[in-house]
Amino acid sequence: MARALRLAERGRYTAHPNPVVGCVLVKDGKVVGEGSHLKTGEGHAEVNALRAAGAEARDSIAYVTLEPCAHHGRTPPCAEALIAAGVARVNIAMQDPGEDVSGRGYGMLADAGIEVQTGLMASVAASLNRGYLKRVTERRPLLRLKLASSIDGAIAMAGGESQWITGPLARKDVQRLRARSGAVMTGIGTVLADDPSLNVRSAEIDTGGLQPIRVVLDSRLRMPLTARMLSLSGTTLVCCSGDHDSRDLQKSNAEVMPFADNGGRVDADSVLEELARRGVNEVLVEAGAELAGHLLENDLVDELVIYQAPHIMGSQTLGLVTTPSWLSLSDRQELTITDVRRIGRDTRITATLGQVA
Amino acid sequence: MARALRLAERGRYTAHPNPVVGCVLVKDGKVVGEGSHLKTGEGHAEVNALRAAGAEARDSIAYVTLEPCAHHGRTPPCAEALIAAGVARVNIAMQDPGEDVSGRGYGMLADAGIEVQTGLMASVAASLNRGYLKRVTERRPLLRLKLASSIDGAIAMAGGESQWITGPLARKDVQRLRARSGAVMTGIGTVLADDPSLNVRSAEIDTGGLQPIRVVLDSRLRMPLTARMLSLSGTTLVCCSGDHDSRDLQKSNAEVMPFADNGGRVDADSVLEELARRGVNEVLVEAGAELAGHLLENDLVDELVIYQAPHIMGSQTLGLVTTPSWLSLSDRQELTITDVRRIGRDTRITATLGQVA
Repeated sequence: MARALRLAERGRYTAHPNPVVGCVLVKDGKVVGEGSHLKTGEGHAEVNALRAAGAEARDSIAYVTLEPCAHHGRTPPCAEALIAAGVARVNIAMQDPGEDVSGRGYGMLADAGIEVQTGLMASVAASLNRGYLKRVTERRPLLRLKLASSIDGAIAMAGGESQWITGPLARKDVQRLRARSGAVMTGIGTVLADDPSLNVRSAEIDTGGLQPIRVVLDSRLRMPLTARMLSLSGTTLVCCSGDHDSRDLQKSNAEVMPFADNGGRVDADSVLEELARRGVNEVLVEAGAELAGHLLENDLVDELVIYQAPHIMGSQTLGLVTTPSWLSLSDRQELTITDVRRIGRDTRITATLGQVA
Repeated sequence: MARALRLAERGRYTAHPNPVVGCVLVKDGKVVGEGSHLKTGEGHAEVNALRAAGAEARDSIAYVTLEPCAHHGRTPPCAEALIAAGVARVNIAMQDPGEDVSGRGYGMLADAGIEVQTGLMASVAASLNRGYLKRVTERRPLLRLKLASSIDGAIAMAGGESQWITGPLARKDVQRLRARSGAVMTGIGTVLADDPSLNVRSAEIDTGGLQPIRVVLDSRLRMPLTARMLSLSGTTLVCCSGDHDSRDLQKSNAEVMPFADNGGRVDADSVLEELARRGVNEVLVEAGAELAGHLLENDLVDELVIYQAPHIMGSQTLGLVTTPSWLSLSDRQELTITDVRRIGRDTRITATLGQVA
């Protein structure tokens, strides 16, 4: 199963909106076939493993990181393929809560007289697909907030003076975060100040042509027609509130969509709901202190990734997040740090929101 | 030599003001004796190793982490002892720049016809005694600034609300920083606000009775007679500027000493000079944002140790350091991170000041 989980990871940049899945077929203590799900519409992990095993699949044990599908979608159901290949036993790390599956893959296998076990390394399997699982159960993508600051939490001088704070390896690392995300979100303030591209452009990362949807929260529709991201391939979704004339912007390659207003801002939760509808499992937010703070204040952040540059910038600076409603110590957001590592000269801290006992 | 360096580390909490030193005697590829310098006035590492080896010391090779002393101080010179024991060869990691030694130990050994080599693992050996080396060469102790904040660099709410930010393991770790320091320095503001003890009180740390000198920078001599640290054993040095009536404070177990004024503050560099004179190799600063910022602004900090608690405290907060003179990005202080590790739920980042290419 550990091997199957590593195989699943191979689809990290390419499989979405589908979950990542790995499958290993073992017979007489030897691996006879293995597969990953690499791309939506192409072979599932089980089918790829069966193909690799050929006739050896008969009487083998299948280790699958997620419950095999039971429905005729873009590919025939994997449960059926496992049955047809004569697999003796199926070991499933975790059930797929997606409404097309959810126990039916399990049932189809069991009905065919195949011994099915579940739960082996279930928590690792779940962590691989946190975004997918959140989307199919809560109809929201996982929201990952990326921040970059000095070691004392500053992002710019108080006078506004700023520049790249983190080093080139940290910026390359952010490319990997974008590549695994179905959407990258920012605020109109960042677009007007920095004119970012928000795309995956590292030659070292193969997304199979996928680019995250670029999402701009822009309540008053101030998006410039000349914004760099509009000249790039893929979708730019500009989210506004209320009525605005968006014809020119739509002609300039933007998709404009109105959402509810939430205290003068686009209601971020409604935007997340729309992104889940579009099959986005993970959203990466690369935004300024205002939007970052707003998302934190509204409990919409699932994971934080903070790149800390090795500087002390001092007191005459601007901070990471603007949180006007957090006035008391009890308002602070507890984190559970899941990873700390050096990325070049910077330190990357990954944390989930909330405290794990 | 690696073994000798580990032996040296055994004197970390007890040897100061002397340097930490380790010695290993090897004969026919076997260790025949080893020793550490554990306490000023007691046996040096070489003498302890020779004692352990007994007659086996003859014709052995000595690995010593610091040049053996050549003067009659509280103990007879180690170079003489090595010669008398008939050691065949001496391998010294680095020369001791102390004015009583500085090449003379080397010379004494060479004059006796002993083959002497130097430089093996010299940089590690130097890092063990950075404080001692700085004191004997620059007449200043190493200054280590300890800070504790949330992950976004906050130490309290803007309204002043604050509490222990870091966890119990981080606070225990600070005890180790105190134990290795000849002095612990703070500002009068911290004394008035928190009434700290600044002593080593962990049952797990044996300092052999040593307590760091407690140093309070208190330009206008506002130190309360009831300050907790005055009731503790050891020295409390209150550093003021100008003339003040200090009789009551001196009666209350404080040593009061006037220093030059530096823009309304006690001139910290003069205090450091005095501490070096008293044999302090390392000073730990545990202070508020004002004094921490002042020391940074004046380039007096050699090493930073930051404990980051796993919280985001947001924008309505007070920052780590107050640095009114740092107005431009070019004023920021570059760091070279030497260690990042988890201490309980907190993250400890250790850094030296300045950028190493």
